[in-house]
Amino acid sequence: MAEVLENLKSLVKKAESKMVLLVADGLGGIPHPDFGYRTELEAAQTPHLDELAKKSALGLMTPVNYGITPGSGPGHIGLFGYNPEELTIGRGVLEALGVGFHLQAGDVAARANFATRDERGIIVDRRAGRISTEECARLVEKISQEVKEIEGVEIILRPGMEHRFVLILRGEGLGEKVKDTDPQKEGFPPYEPQALDAASEKTSRVLKLFLEKANQIIKEEPKANAILLRGFSQSPHLEKFSERYGVKPLAIAIYPMYKGIARLFGFDTPEVSGDFQDEVKLLRDKWFDYDFFFLHYKDTDKAGEDGDFKKKVDRIEYLDQFIPQILALNPDVLVITGDHSTPTLLHSHSWHPSPVLLYSKYAGSSTGLRFTERECAHGYLGQFPARALMSLMLANALRLGKFGA
Amino acid sequence: MAEVLENLKSLVKKAESKMVLLVADGLGGIPHPDFGYRTELEAAQTPHLDELAKKSALGLMTPVNYGITPGSGPGHIGLFGYNPEELTIGRGVLEALGVGFHLQAGDVAARANFATRDERGIIVDRRAGRISTEECARLVEKISQEVKEIEGVEIILRPGMEHRFVLILRGEGLGEKVKDTDPQKEGFPPYEPQALDAASEKTSRVLKLFLEKANQIIKEEPKANAILLRGFSQSPHLEKFSERYGVKPLAIAIYPMYKGIARLFGFDTPEVSGDFQDEVKLLRDKWFDYDFFFLHYKDTDKAGEDGDFKKKVDRIEYLDQFIPQILALNPDVLVITGDHSTPTLLHSHSWHPSPVLLYSKYAGSSTGLRFTERECAHGYLGQFPARALMSLMLANALRLGKFGA
Repeated sequence: MAEVLENLKSLVKKAESKMVLLVADGLGGIPHPDFGYRTELEAAQTPHLDELAKKSALGLMTPVNYGITPGSGPGHIGLFGYNPEELTIGRGVLEALGVGFHLQAGDVAARANFATRDERGIIVDRRAGRISTEECARLVEKISQEVKEIEGVEIILRPGMEHRFVLILRGEGLGEKVKDTDPQKEGFPPYEPQALDAASEKTSRVLKLFLEKANQIIKEEPKANAILLRGFSQSPHLEKFSERYGVKPLAIAIYPMYKGIARLFGFDTPEVSGDFQDEVKLLRDKWFDYDFFFLHYKDTDKAGEDGDFKKKVDRIEYLDQFIPQILALNPDVLVITGDHSTPTLLHSHSWHPSPVLLYSKYAGSSTGLRFTERECAHGYLGQFPARALMSLMLANALRLGKFGA
Repeated sequence: MAEVLENLKSLVKKAESKMVLLVADGLGGIPHPDFGYRTELEAAQTPHLDELAKKSALGLMTPVNYGITPGSGPGHIGLFGYNPEELTIGRGVLEALGVGFHLQAGDVAARANFATRDERGIIVDRRAGRISTEECARLVEKISQEVKEIEGVEIILRPGMEHRFVLILRGEGLGEKVKDTDPQKEGFPPYEPQALDAASEKTSRVLKLFLEKANQIIKEEPKANAILLRGFSQSPHLEKFSERYGVKPLAIAIYPMYKGIARLFGFDTPEVSGDFQDEVKLLRDKWFDYDFFFLHYKDTDKAGEDGDFKKKVDRIEYLDQFIPQILALNPDVLVITGDHSTPTLLHSHSWHPSPVLLYSKYAGSSTGLRFTERECAHGYLGQFPARALMSLMLANALRLGKFGA
């Protein structure tokens, strides 16, 4: 994929301009045969987005690379202007962020499943019959009471949905390069923890002891009598967003995972609950304290993953209603886009580029009557990699100096 | 040029989906002043392609890089998803493939001309007056009878069109790095064979001896009394297409060179003769035995190189008739494109991007009423490098897993 300017940071200059990046998760779609071969954006009534589109530059944004379907991690890494082909957020880290856990540097996190094993130790159900969330919380509490520390390493468990939980190891000298113990299929025993480099041997040792103790605690449970671990990872080392771009950034998101991802990049991530209305209220409240606002809207992705066309249309129309309130704040740059597409026809994330709308005094020529994939396909911004979006936002905010003499 | 995802192979997953890549050689054109400033695709009556375009995603595909005119080698290397700026198929190899020769690993091939030299050994005609194809075959046979082996290296000659033939050396310890003996202009003697690395010294030695013997055999010929050699090359080392993409690929092409190129990548390349009708019949016959079909149609390039606008239009219209038969097989993904453009106005390959049509359930928004360069210029697929086409085909065939957590 094409790269942004290598030393972009050297061109960044101070300004008073304010930028808003509104990410409607999974926004993009593809034509659905059951709905007149329209996409969700095309079927939705979006008077405010239409009016805005007529005054904006439109385009299509490839999240990672041609044909590549991103998880939420890579999708947002690109939007923040980093290279998703080089910077990775591990599964364990994402899951820890997803339950609202505040990771510290050096913490090793893993995704954990309660599972069912037979008397020979073979995993017969990787999800322990999908025990209830309450059951999971009970078991996590039981283990936490008895296992708090091993070899000076703090053992932290956080329950998730159903059979899922998160394991965090906090201590000195922990590497993250440990193989998954989850065989990812039934009919096999869990793998023994195994370090892939010298720096991770302590991690592996602590894990072995943890699993011995924890398995002993749950061995009489009717379903959840085993633990599977995968995605061992630490927070990636990365340059703070504020340092790279010379801004004071705020992340407004209800779902913990997106707050967590933004926190990795050094965004302030205040608590906000309710729905998008509450997010917009917080945007208003914080308007004078920051100059870069990441505003995350989840509903479009949920409807997309549910394969619910009408629901996704409804959620787009709901979002549309808030556009005037955001514009009333007078942002110098407003971008509306997605982190990836989630077409209801596929009921999952996809490789399709995200429609992007760039509104600023200096955006360039408008070419479309509506904010849809089809209109974006021939937009002024063309098709570009997501990692270039920040360069465009900064430029439009008059925050980039000239390159070369 | 932008690169595809580096470790694409790690995302490839098994599926039952079938993909067809229909390559109309030299398909793209440019507006011709003598034909109303239309391209050949615009002037052609293509009811089936038009109907398909309305339901497909369109775009323009750059074969190698901006402004770069590719030979058939680079054109196809890109289409198969490899990097034509890094992977080379040498002239000798291409010529050997072009006469239907089955190269083995280690064979060194070269393009050869019969030529005319004067009594001082100066080349006065690089093409020996364009002797007839029959004359060439006679001389090749004469030499082959007398020169079969030198230093344990098998000497193989295969006649081509007019003054052209192919020389293949088959033996142990042969390198390909030998300088051309063809001075590529008249008024000069041929160069002596010269190895450019130690591994190629045996090759050079054998060539010297071959030329001594062969020149002796033809020295009394009225026109073809000299031999010029160029493009010494061996088959490139490359990862098999089937291994890279997890497919079972079939190449259907009448012209030996394209069968040969596909064979280098490990495609099965059955014999097929006649015309495109016979290719489509073979596609039908083999439909259940493979899951990736490369279908090559030559006529558009021939007409383009002849500078014959009406002929190229006619050949496009002929191709159009077969679209329903291909669609009747129900491919999950059908791509129609070219390996490069061959505008009749230029009567040669050109740098212009190839129009591309992608038809699948998940292709994305359709934007055009016809399959023409102009419609493709504002298509949903945008403009992208040919080497990314395979990523898109695999994605549309649901054969790529998600990237990142």
